Amino acid sequence: MIDDITLEEERTLSSAVDPIALTRLLGQQEYADVASLLESLPLEDRSITWSEISQEHHLGILVEMRADPREALIDEMSLIELDALFKGMDAEDLVELSDSLPNRLIDRALSAMDDIQRHYYEGAQQYEDSLAGHWLGHHFLSLPQNAKVRDALRLLRRELPEYVDTLFLTSRTGGFRGAVKIGSVIGAPDHLLLAEIAEEDFTTINANDDATEASLKVQNSGYSALPVVNDNSTLLGRLDIGTASELVNDYYEGRLMATAGLDEDEDLFSPVKTAAKNRALWLGINLLTAFAAAWFIGLFEATLQQVVALAVLMPVVASMGGIAGSQTLTLVIRGLALGQVNEVNRWALVKKELQVGAFNGVIWAVVVGYIAGAWFDSFMIGFVISLAILVNIVTAALSGALIPIALKKLKLDPALSGSVVLTTVTDIVGFVAFLGLGALLLT
Amino acid sequence: MIDDITLEEERTLSSAVDPIALTRLLGQQEYADVASLLESLPLEDRSITWSEISQEHHLGILVEMRADPREALIDEMSLIELDALFKGMDAEDLVELSDSLPNRLIDRALSAMDDIQRHYYEGAQQYEDSLAGHWLGHHFLSLPQNAKVRDALRLLRRELPEYVDTLFLTSRTGGFRGAVKIGSVIGAPDHLLLAEIAEEDFTTINANDDATEASLKVQNSGYSALPVVNDNSTLLGRLDIGTASELVNDYYEGRLMATAGLDEDEDLFSPVKTAAKNRALWLGINLLTAFAAAWFIGLFEATLQQVVALAVLMPVVASMGGIAGSQTLTLVIRGLALGQVNEVNRWALVKKELQVGAFNGVIWAVVVGYIAGAWFDSFMIGFVISLAILVNIVTAALSGALIPIALKKLKLDPALSGSVVLTTVTDIVGFVAFLGLGALLLT
Repeated sequence: MIDDITLEEERTLSSAVDPIALTRLLGQQEYADVASLLESLPLEDRSITWSEISQEHHLGILVEMRADPREALIDEMSLIELDALFKGMDAEDLVELSDSLPNRLIDRALSAMDDIQRHYYEGAQQYEDSLAGHWLGHHFLSLPQNAKVRDALRLLRRELPEYVDTLFLTSRTGGFRGAVKIGSVIGAPDHLLLAEIAEEDFTTINANDDATEASLKVQNSGYSALPVVNDNSTLLGRLDIGTASELVNDYYEGRLMATAGLDEDEDLFSPVKTAAKNRALWLGINLLTAFAAAWFIGLFEATLQQVVALAVLMPVVASMGGIAGSQTLTLVIRGLALGQVNEVNRWALVKKELQVGAFNGVIWAVVVGYIAGAWFDSFMIGFVISLAILVNIVTAALSGALIPIALKKLKLDPALSGSVVLTTVTDIVGFVAFLGLGALLLT
Repeated sequence: MIDDITLEEERTLSSAVDPIALTRLLGQQEYADVASLLESLPLEDRSITWSEISQEHHLGILVEMRADPREALIDEMSLIELDALFKGMDAEDLVELSDSLPNRLIDRALSAMDDIQRHYYEGAQQYEDSLAGHWLGHHFLSLPQNAKVRDALRLLRRELPEYVDTLFLTSRTGGFRGAVKIGSVIGAPDHLLLAEIAEEDFTTINANDDATEASLKVQNSGYSALPVVNDNSTLLGRLDIGTASELVNDYYEGRLMATAGLDEDEDLFSPVKTAAKNRALWLGINLLTAFAAAWFIGLFEATLQQVVALAVLMPVVASMGGIAGSQTLTLVIRGLALGQVNEVNRWALVKKELQVGAFNGVIWAVVVGYIAGAWFDSFMIGFVISLAILVNIVTAALSGALIPIALKKLKLDPALSGSVVLTTVTDIVGFVAFLGLGALLLT
């Protein structure tokens, strides 16, 4: 066990891990850091290190890990180890881990829980993991709406959960009735009704709200947690800023990985076959679009044979369009994600991007035309590539703005599929414009 | 003023804004939402709406905005309006706004501040904005290390700042000596020394720590704020989870925008010339790499003229390499950002990615070779493209892993420049491998 590792035992640990640092992290329960450390280890080293970590830390670490590496560790655990894991587990832990557990193990974990936790877990499962209700926390303080300051102080004398800066007030039927800041309670006279010092219009989250949007709301609220209610205003739980920050970070990481067609849970050291499989779909889609572009080039075989400079310069046209388009695309995707692009302003945005495209198109058409004309010592080649660049950059700006808006309307993820669709458009338009103009003007 | 808008006055507002919703947001001081709303407006509408918002809300909204749109609004404000803005400003607000203010206005703002705030501001400016010390907060509770529970309770009876769940203990010279949870104070006997109920080994942040890493530390700590100290352990301030979350979100947004060579502060509706200028550098760099690739293609003009199928299929080879490489690149960049890729494991990672590349390379070589061979009814064309795809995907995997590691060593940002360098490599290797093999085997 790492906890009581001695210098002589160190050698059993993988060479990649500093056992002293690991012991310190475990001692301070810095499980997020331990999880990150484990993820950074090649598979074999990871198994060795995991087997050396004392069981009491397992749950805390697993909860912090990404799904793929976590699943790999869970797969290696024996039923006895798993049962030990399940013993200390509450509903929120199981919600976090359920992605990495087969159904039979989820049932086993549930049967080790008490009724309340099982009830909480089933409540969370009623909401998809994209909704706030799935990520409910149950460690909060609440009191009836007619409670007094002295009741609150009695409650506060117990151990406070993490991220508690308010007490929630509820009606007899469990409806959310308001929140009182802890700071207001401490100063107030014992007999005062809490309702009198409650915050006005305290922001709540609906369990059906989008989880990322709800999390941003928590981050912007200035409070450590916001109450989560259902459509009848019944208090179901809370979303605290720790959970909210994890959800927002996962969301952003997912966006970043999606730009390469990867999943947020991708393991740095997944087995070769798994990694290849994870990437195959994206490569396959790209192959289709590449062959589509090739097919369009093929229409101009005769032209290419006559003017081989066109073959040489072809990629320049496609690539300038691709880059200009991806700039617009990235800006619009961010706007969509932040809710800043909507029905009202989208035409203004398309118009502005078209203007930027026209402006950029003219400038780069001149630059590229001049260079290409000089290179091949032909005014007409310069003229043809100028026109093609202009057409392609303007098309790219238009596509970069319209594609993500259209994809979002079709309920597809613009961050994932936007760049493929855009590249297909800019490749094909670029090749056809350039080779088509070449066929007209150069042969 | 929106605050007391009536139905008749509504028409003066831009048509894109729902005045009732805006009034509600302003009333609840949901300034982040108002800031986002303003950013989503085309420039003219934005000015109109801004002029209708009561001055008391200006500071709160500006602090929440991105630098570019904020600067545009500040540029339009009169000196009288600015002076009103500066009146209510504390050091943290000015730190946030200083990006968008010319030096003479910063001086003007400073001269409107009291000595303490000015001192705080100058303290923050001693650290670059990538360091935790720049983002210090000063709204926290601290007591001498020999204070008792009753002293703490006296302090807590005043209005509590946001995100306070601990009291900091300091030595006589201002050294950080520990933190006491508010929950522990409320339960404890009046005469107890706070030092006796302080948390052991409370995590601190050094003012010279990277701001994003420090922010993640706050998010993972389970506390609402962590103390920030200098090298002598003097308590300088704190980093609260609200500020930390903003910094982390800005960081992620910066990563996403960097994939297209854009800045996190880019305005959705920046003026056309500004937008075109912001994008010019990236397009220019891309043009250089595109011409480099074209130059390599030009070496094979004779071959292209003889076997025009090579010109048709060329983009397929380059694009498969580009996609495979960007998958590795994205995974490695994430690993580097999370600190999961380091001296110890990087060779293991390069080896794994090479294996994935070899595996994928063989599979896609066969697929592409078969299709291309059938299309042009030539075994040799299929064979040549197979080999080229294999070479390019393996090179792409190797480059995708090594390029970001090398860029990081050179203190360049892999998220920004990684994809350009990678595309250059996969384009050139793809074209040279394909056309070179074609020249050898097909002519």
